[in-house]
Amino acid sequence: MKIAAGIEYCGTRFSGWQRQKHASGVQQHVENALSTVADEKIQVQCAGRTDSGVHALHQVIHFETDVEREPHSWVFGANANLTRDVSLLWARPVSADFHARYSARGRQYRYLILNRYTRPGVNSGFTAWEYRDLNVGLMSAAARFLIGEHDFTSFRGRGCQAHSPIREIRELTVTRQGEYIVIDIHANAFLMHMVRNIVGVLTSVGTGKHEPGWVQAVLAARDREQGGVTAPPQGLYLMDIDYPEKFAIPRRATPFWTQLD
Amino acid sequence: MKIAAGIEYCGTRFSGWQRQKHASGVQQHVENALSTVADEKIQVQCAGRTDSGVHALHQVIHFETDVEREPHSWVFGANANLTRDVSLLWARPVSADFHARYSARGRQYRYLILNRYTRPGVNSGFTAWEYRDLNVGLMSAAARFLIGEHDFTSFRGRGCQAHSPIREIRELTVTRQGEYIVIDIHANAFLMHMVRNIVGVLTSVGTGKHEPGWVQAVLAARDREQGGVTAPPQGLYLMDIDYPEKFAIPRRATPFWTQLD
Repeated sequence: MKIAAGIEYCGTRFSGWQRQKHASGVQQHVENALSTVADEKIQVQCAGRTDSGVHALHQVIHFETDVEREPHSWVFGANANLTRDVSLLWARPVSADFHARYSARGRQYRYLILNRYTRPGVNSGFTAWEYRDLNVGLMSAAARFLIGEHDFTSFRGRGCQAHSPIREIRELTVTRQGEYIVIDIHANAFLMHMVRNIVGVLTSVGTGKHEPGWVQAVLAARDREQGGVTAPPQGLYLMDIDYPEKFAIPRRATPFWTQLD
Repeated sequence: MKIAAGIEYCGTRFSGWQRQKHASGVQQHVENALSTVADEKIQVQCAGRTDSGVHALHQVIHFETDVEREPHSWVFGANANLTRDVSLLWARPVSADFHARYSARGRQYRYLILNRYTRPGVNSGFTAWEYRDLNVGLMSAAARFLIGEHDFTSFRGRGCQAHSPIREIRELTVTRQGEYIVIDIHANAFLMHMVRNIVGVLTSVGTGKHEPGWVQAVLAARDREQGGVTAPPQGLYLMDIDYPEKFAIPRRATPFWTQLD
């Protein structure tokens, strides 16, 4: 039997999603909790691996098991055995052809930059910070060069194991909301550090260090050396995963707690 | 010379605002940082003491010093010497008759309750949680009994040192925003644990345990024993302080990061 589940987590105290021998990945906490519920060893696959410090509002996983449990038993059993930084949101049986990673048609990320004179105090683990005034119009103009299907080699982190550097960005918006710059990005899939590297170049445009057209040149160069700095992880949120409707995977309920009026 | 300043902080790792001998209060971190900038001992007064785990988006303080510094030197100097959980937002000279606590005409608090089946994962330190469906209409009806000037003895925490239990609540609203119940409360001042005790009784009404009219009876009883449980601290935010315009104290810039669209 194949089970899919949705998870949210705070990435601050984790070394990222992936299970590691000498560090604390979210994956091993989830697998240990589910294994306790199942009373057998459970291994999970996720839709998108996140880096250390990156948060997830809706990560999706699947696992296979011969054990029969009600969906709410998976959810409450796992949460009773999980640290307070991680919470299962739902669980449900899925068809055998579902795969959390390979069935996904798209991933939605959000990046927050606190854009004010003084650094964050209340939410330093939940936002990046830029003290120089960021020009949203210029950042949006630069962002438009990245929308569509491109070779994103210039935005690909070293160590990325993807076979192809081609990805399709379907949406990339930059808005100012009060003290924050909010960058929303939707793509079929992402390369390692791709969102943070995109935020890095957009920030360089926003501060006036580069013209928007520079981003087009960076993209065309297919050379990571031409790109900007990698934006810090704490501003990044995996927001939602997009699957074909036939799998009936729940979407993330909105708004989350950074979207209250 | 008297200086006023605005501060935001995350209450999670602190024992509350107040300086304590055997615990870590926000106050001593702020005083130590300002003392380093001034190169003399600085003592601060705050507008409203917060409990352990309670956050502040805009706490206001004042202090007296013979040292002359530019406002930005106080801000950046203090922030360079403060933990990442605390940030000075602004500083400015104020007239001698200003007092952070006694000049304040009102305080604005917000309380967040994540109201869904599963516990928080990403923001467990930044919201309360109630798994039973809360009825906002009933909570709002109950809240109306508390608006106005009343004896709030039934909502006063043990150990409260205020001379009078009379306070005036000017605004008390309960709204649902996505998965959250948002309670906004504005009063001239608050007794110890008053917001959290009000949230406790409103929650009992929201779950259907009590009728809205019960809150009127609790208020009239002037007896803490008649009230409900004290809601947990992590859902509470000190949002803003209201001063007479003549002091020209900045208001909190909105929206903050729980108010993004």
